[in-house]
Amino acid sequence: MTKPVHVLNGPNLNLLGTREVDIYGSETLAGIEQRCRDAAERLGISILFAQTNGEGELVSLIQRAGREASGVVLNAAAYTHTSLALHDALKMLSVPLVEIHLSNVYKREPIRHKSFVSPLATGVICGFGPLGYELALQAIAPLVAPRAP
Amino acid sequence: MTKPVHVLNGPNLNLLGTREVDIYGSETLAGIEQRCRDAAERLGISILFAQTNGEGELVSLIQRAGREASGVVLNAAAYTHTSLALHDALKMLSVPLVEIHLSNVYKREPIRHKSFVSPLATGVICGFGPLGYELALQAIAPLVAPRAP
Amino acid sequence: MTKPVHVLNGPNLNLLGTREVDIYGSETLAGIEQRCRDAAERLGISILFAQTNGEGELVSLIQRAGREASGVVLNAAAYTHTSLALHDALKMLSVPLVEIHLSNVYKREPIRHKSFVSPLATGVICGFGPLGYELALQAIAPLVAPRAP
Amino acid sequence: MTKPVHVLNGPNLNLLGTREVDIYGSETLAGIEQRCRDAAERLGISILFAQTNGEGELVSLIQRAGREASGVVLNAAAYTHTSLALHDALKMLSVPLVEIHLSNVYKREPIRHKSFVSPLATGVICGFGPLGYELALQAIAPLVAPRAP
Amino acid sequence: MTKPVHVLNGPNLNLLGTREVDIYGSETLAGIEQRCRDAAERLGISILFAQTNGEGELVSLIQRAGREASGVVLNAAAYTHTSLALHDALKMLSVPLVEIHLSNVYKREPIRHKSFVSPLATGVICGFGPLGYELALQAIAPLVAPRAP
Amino acid sequence: MTKPVHVLNGPNLNLLGTREVDIYGSETLAGIEQRCRDAAERLGISILFAQTNGEGELVSLIQRAGREASGVVLNAAAYTHTSLALHDALKMLSVPLVEIHLSNVYKREPIRHKSFVSPLATGVICGFGPLGYELALQAIAPLVAPRAP
Amino acid sequence: MTKPVHVLNGPNLNLLGTREVDIYGSETLAGIEQRCRDAAERLGISILFAQTNGEGELVSLIQRAGREASGVVLNAAAYTHTSLALHDALKMLSVPLVEIHLSNVYKREPIRHKSFVSPLATGVICGFGPLGYELALQAIAPLVAPRAP
Amino acid sequence: MTKPVHVLNGPNLNLLGTREVDIYGSETLAGIEQRCRDAAERLGISILFAQTNGEGELVSLIQRAGREASGVVLNAAAYTHTSLALHDALKMLSVPLVEIHLSNVYKREPIRHKSFVSPLATGVICGFGPLGYELALQAIAPLVAPRAP
Amino acid sequence: MTKPVHVLNGPNLNLLGTREVDIYGSETLAGIEQRCRDAAERLGISILFAQTNGEGELVSLIQRAGREASGVVLNAAAYTHTSLALHDALKMLSVPLVEIHLSNVYKREPIRHKSFVSPLATGVICGFGPLGYELALQAIAPLVAPRAP
Amino acid sequence: MTKPVHVLNGPNLNLLGTREVDIYGSETLAGIEQRCRDAAERLGISILFAQTNGEGELVSLIQRAGREASGVVLNAAAYTHTSLALHDALKMLSVPLVEIHLSNVYKREPIRHKSFVSPLATGVICGFGPLGYELALQAIAPLVAPRAP
Amino acid sequence: MTKPVHVLNGPNLNLLGTREVDIYGSETLAGIEQRCRDAAERLGISILFAQTNGEGELVSLIQRAGREASGVVLNAAAYTHTSLALHDALKMLSVPLVEIHLSNVYKREPIRHKSFVSPLATGVICGFGPLGYELALQAIAPLVAPRAP
Amino acid sequence: MTKPVHVLNGPNLNLLGTREVDIYGSETLAGIEQRCRDAAERLGISILFAQTNGEGELVSLIQRAGREASGVVLNAAAYTHTSLALHDALKMLSVPLVEIHLSNVYKREPIRHKSFVSPLATGVICGFGPLGYELALQAIAPLVAPRAP
Repeated sequence: MTKPVHVLNGPNLNLLGTREVDIYGSETLAGIEQRCRDAAERLGISILFAQTNGEGELVSLIQRAGREASGVVLNAAAYTHTSLALHDALKMLSVPLVEIHLSNVYKREPIRHKSFVSPLATGVICGFGPLGYELALQAIAPLVAPRAP
Repeated sequence: MTKPVHVLNGPNLNLLGTREVDIYGSETLAGIEQRCRDAAERLGISILFAQTNGEGELVSLIQRAGREASGVVLNAAAYTHTSLALHDALKMLSVPLVEIHLSNVYKREPIRHKSFVSPLATGVICGFGPLGYELALQAIAPLVAPRAP
Repeated sequence: MTKPVHVLNGPNLNLLGTREVDIYGSETLAGIEQRCRDAAERLGISILFAQTNGEGELVSLIQRAGREASGVVLNAAAYTHTSLALHDALKMLSVPLVEIHLSNVYKREPIRHKSFVSPLATGVICGFGPLGYELALQAIAPLVAPRAP
Repeated sequence: MTKPVHVLNGPNLNLLGTREVDIYGSETLAGIEQRCRDAAERLGISILFAQTNGEGELVSLIQRAGREASGVVLNAAAYTHTSLALHDALKMLSVPLVEIHLSNVYKREPIRHKSFVSPLATGVICGFGPLGYELALQAIAPLVAPRAP
Repeated sequence: MTKPVHVLNGPNLNLLGTREVDIYGSETLAGIEQRCRDAAERLGISILFAQTNGEGELVSLIQRAGREASGVVLNAAAYTHTSLALHDALKMLSVPLVEIHLSNVYKREPIRHKSFVSPLATGVICGFGPLGYELALQAIAPLVAPRAP
Repeated sequence: MTKPVHVLNGPNLNLLGTREVDIYGSETLAGIEQRCRDAAERLGISILFAQTNGEGELVSLIQRAGREASGVVLNAAAYTHTSLALHDALKMLSVPLVEIHLSNVYKREPIRHKSFVSPLATGVICGFGPLGYELALQAIAPLVAPRAP
Repeated sequence: MTKPVHVLNGPNLNLLGTREVDIYGSETLAGIEQRCRDAAERLGISILFAQTNGEGELVSLIQRAGREASGVVLNAAAYTHTSLALHDALKMLSVPLVEIHLSNVYKREPIRHKSFVSPLATGVICGFGPLGYELALQAIAPLVAPRAP
Repeated sequence: MTKPVHVLNGPNLNLLGTREVDIYGSETLAGIEQRCRDAAERLGISILFAQTNGEGELVSLIQRAGREASGVVLNAAAYTHTSLALHDALKMLSVPLVEIHLSNVYKREPIRHKSFVSPLATGVICGFGPLGYELALQAIAPLVAPRAP
Repeated sequence: MTKPVHVLNGPNLNLLGTREVDIYGSETLAGIEQRCRDAAERLGISILFAQTNGEGELVSLIQRAGREASGVVLNAAAYTHTSLALHDALKMLSVPLVEIHLSNVYKREPIRHKSFVSPLATGVICGFGPLGYELALQAIAPLVAPRAP
Repeated sequence: MTKPVHVLNGPNLNLLGTREVDIYGSETLAGIEQRCRDAAERLGISILFAQTNGEGELVSLIQRAGREASGVVLNAAAYTHTSLALHDALKMLSVPLVEIHLSNVYKREPIRHKSFVSPLATGVICGFGPLGYELALQAIAPLVAPRAP
Repeated sequence: MTKPVHVLNGPNLNLLGTREVDIYGSETLAGIEQRCRDAAERLGISILFAQTNGEGELVSLIQRAGREASGVVLNAAAYTHTSLALHDALKMLSVPLVEIHLSNVYKREPIRHKSFVSPLATGVICGFGPLGYELALQAIAPLVAPRAP
Repeated sequence: MTKPVHVLNGPNLNLLGTREVDIYGSETLAGIEQRCRDAAERLGISILFAQTNGEGELVSLIQRAGREASGVVLNAAAYTHTSLALHDALKMLSVPLVEIHLSNVYKREPIRHKSFVSPLATGVICGFGPLGYELALQAIAPLVAPRAP
């Protein structure tokens, strides 16, 4: 059986839907997880969904994905822009990787234009809010699907 | 009746599928147009598809879209990174805008990390090749659909 | 008889008065042309008024002015800040040149503080909206007027 | 009853008073906590005092303060200057925030002149050693006090 | 009765017409003042004309204008490019402000391309020598004129 | 008897409470002086309070403080960020120095993040409005108090 | 039969010999074309000679050369230094490319030291005026000559 | 008895030998630990060997070393280049410190040329793979050895 | 009779010999003036000696020197490095100018390596303390001496 | 009789043809010298050919050329990009100078884009390998040929 | 028989032990040579030891090592940080290279953080004084040892 | 008997008086040497005068001065601005050092504003041509004179 796609989320995303609603929308992370599960079912893949506030913990989640996942959808939030440790962990990853952001980071402060994730990702999707997660799963699905015999 | 979504393409995209196949893939721009038409039909929207090598022509296409389109999917290619005139044209646009790139521009040369389109776009999709056009239409569809009465 | 002053306008100025009215005002380019014609008549000079969205076309308009104009009033819009080709065309111009902008570009984004036109212009007028065109013609008039015998 | 002010401390502050005594003084973090408790009592407010070496843990402490505190006094130490995740957590905070440093960071290395905390703080106090905590509580007290009926 | 427009001049402008005549022309500051008085009469406004070499004095002149002027035409000369104190004084000014320079500062050294005045001015006129003062008064006149009842 | 603490204020602070009230509050400089006098009395110290718009005058005030003050509380306003002459004057000062700003300068434009005062100050207090002056006096009091025999 | 070498010229080169004669010499573009035809004949190759002021048109000329030329000699003038679109077109070119400039661009303004053409060219020749075209053809001739069977 | 040398390892080093074998070699971290134990025995010193993915945890390991170690050999991996918190922890360390890297970081990306560890280390060894650990212990041994009575 | 050489001194030099004696030495400005008078007598020239803390005053002193001096020896202290107004005043000066500093400014902070005076000076002398004034007068004497008939 | 053209070569060019053959080709410096002698004969000029690894020696060779050569063809290799002493020597040269490089330096590392030679050269030829020397001699020949009487 | 390892030393190292003893220690270069000879004997390799103050001479020493050495240990001193010619010579070297510095260059001025040697070295050892030479030989020995048959 | 002052000269100074006479004057280096000998005699000191084009040779001259000179007057010409090796040699020098330049380097290109000599010199004299050497000897004389018993 195919390994799941790991959908990993970085710092402060656990507060989604409760703060800065005008920027990030009112959907909670639990809502996004459900939306991902629904999309995964439609796409015929399974997912594992996780969040952490810690840089080291996120590195460890990436390392686990290297062993147990068929692909990774990653919203590393602030660590996207500051964590070389995350970059090094992703470099050791050999499965497909899609970078995702809820907001359009390229219209925000310059520090958010630099990504330690992008150079290691297949592609990037940002600015579409929770819908972006669905698009990301849709984009990664053909890359992780087992080839027909 | 709803106005169409304009899918606009910038310089050198007319050569798609014939050059640098290892980078951009073997699908031609005509193939992408067909792929877009199919997706549009599935999504219940109509599209207008165009390409130009000229900066001024692209500005004029954007201006026309401002009058005749319900939304814009834009792959401005090199002008993405150098054209302030394009930026100014987009600033005058009041319909939804999705920025798209075939390759993951954020893992290429630094000049391609700066976008004159992003600050005016709802979101960005890059790195997924022709599939990205489909995702872009999917993302823009709910934004341009007429609301049910 | 004296050659006319060419009043040349760059990209997106054809949309004046229809978009971003809060920034650029509600006067159309046709209105500005009329205002220029009135001012020219008062000043005893003739004008030629043109607009284009294309960088190459603007270069060609400058080249024509080099042959047929007694002076140039230039609102190069976005190309002011990005076009070295425009700069080179202006370097070959031997008649008086006045640079003009509707908005005060020096209070906008840094990219608009750099001008490829200024180093070749007699002077710069910006921030006064359509009135600026009148001031520009007033400033250029004594420079292009045939000296009394 | 009013929520307490959270006095939060970042990495290496647990070693205060035992190392680099010439720079940071000989007062321990426990001493500072006591000093804060005394000041709080004088000011008629309650406090919660905490320290952590981890960036993710500090983010979580800020998130908790968002739910349980009436105000935050924050000495984020090194994370002040490097943590965008901390910045994002503070952006989601809706109670008053005072930034504090024991030493005058603005006379130290340039990296310590950049603060991810300042843009979100009411004010900054630095260079006064442990006394700074008292000043910070004094400054935040009127902002968190319940208004008289 | 309407308050006068203050025409304020910064350091070294008192030497106009006696030094560097090839750059600044042979007209003295007294000549420019007369030219301004003539223009003001034509425009139906009154003016107050002043010059100082001191940064603090220029700040004080701006502060006085804030109380006593209906508008300000300012040639701050070198302080244009170095004085944040001037900038702060202008920020507190609530009447129209026109920035003026005798030479085209944008074709001179880079330090003269940065203006602490521009972000607070309605518009900028430069490069036209003494004529620029007339244009400036002409531009400010409609902004300071009392509205018809 | 102990020398007084000099509370020195730089350019534009004389307009406090009359302009930009939303930023700086409605308290005038006279109000702040009174507030300082009250605090000084509580703290058992005396003060001298002065303001000037001139850089040279501020240098001279610092020089006088070097001869006649037991400590300096300095709000140098714009000169904080541009005056090397002020820096040099402060370097020659041998009494305690506290830097103060009404607004939180570290959340304003980058030019205000650079301070010519900080490297010579004991500490910095900013963002607390007029209250900051009281905190500054409270911080400097123990440093200037005569030691008990 | 062998395909011709395309000798392509960018903006403002159509004015050669009529303006800035002290810099670019008195030879017209027609003169250079004749000089190229003579050199080509001596070298046993054929040429196609073209000029345009437009960036998009130059991109299209490069694209045509990709289909119809055995090699390209390119004097892109100002677009050399600003056009990423030109760079992308050249990247898709698989025949030999020689970059040429009439003046020694490396002793002119810094913006002319950056070339979007050089990274894709076999070599660069600049500073020798019209003679440079002959040297370029001489350098490209052995690279485009059909190998003897 | 002498305190041990702490050999501390940062993020992603736990994956050594299993990923990117061409860069980091096929030796695992356990293999390196054994190699260190053998070398320590030869050198007559004892060691403590640890690894963590977390920045805060690494800070805590350094703090413990400050209490319990006679010297530190540190391969901080990515945190070498981004962690000011690590730098601050090392500043409080009073025993000898040797910085080590498996690869030659000075021939990799610029971000890896900046080290927060180097300014606090006796020396640096990089590029020799696991052998570097042995060299580091050899270099630190004479610095931590108890002096003969 | 020959006009005197003006020896002009900028901010804080009035405190010479009383503060920072280890850096600037124990000689007062009066001592330096006497030293200059003695040297002038030996060299057969007359001098005028002045000091001011104000930028505007220094500009005015330069303007007066333009009318009344045969040469200028200038120690502009901090204004050397920050005052464009001083630069503009010096540009209008047509007599010989020697720049002088007591300390070797080129081994101090980078801001002191930039001089607004140097581009307009014949030469620079720095680092020799009060002796430098004598060397400066010696250097300027032959440039201001009346030529023998 | 006409003086010879000096063909001067900088550091490491003595190893040509024996190392990095894929980059610089298999032709030795002796081969290039012979090629130059043949070309010189065809062009009716004489040459002197020299190489050195030393910066000072290269300066001396340039100085000798200033006395004994009719022109200089210079491949200064690495010193092109780092030697101001070479630049100063070339500034004192009054005969024609052609800069040459075997590889296209403008597509290599940025440090090789900066040339201390270019600002003093008539023109530059690079990227054509040994053929470039022939083109350089061909370009310099008409500049050094004795004019017919 | 195996070729020797060349231990090459750059400018000023001939003064070791006689100047700046507090920084570089009291061991002379002769002492280091002896230390290297002893270590080489222990390691079963032979060495050649040389020093020069000249950049060109150092290039020539590297070229000779390319022909006659089995490996190179290089302390290029100041040329490490400034010599592109040295870099080019090292690029042509095909034997193992170890970079060494007596002091920890990464804690000194920024110019010493840039190395023209590192990108071409196997590894770097710095900060351990003369002991570093022994570690370098130990590190290079296995790389240059003849493989057993 | 006192050791002599070494007057050392760098690259291209051997050509003085024969090239670029408008910049450097018509006095030859031999003339300057004579001028120095005359001044030395007047000052009661002896001198040694030398020049070299080589960086390594200049380093060696400095090293010799360290052993044999009582002071150094150094005009390092271009190496002033590029040679870290020279800087390191000067750092090992323990006698007084005066930096000298014929032209005012601070009004020339930016690269000449950076000096590797200044941080190690007592003072700097520039812009006074050959007279500067005399001033330098005059400045160094009291520093090298044997103290009276």
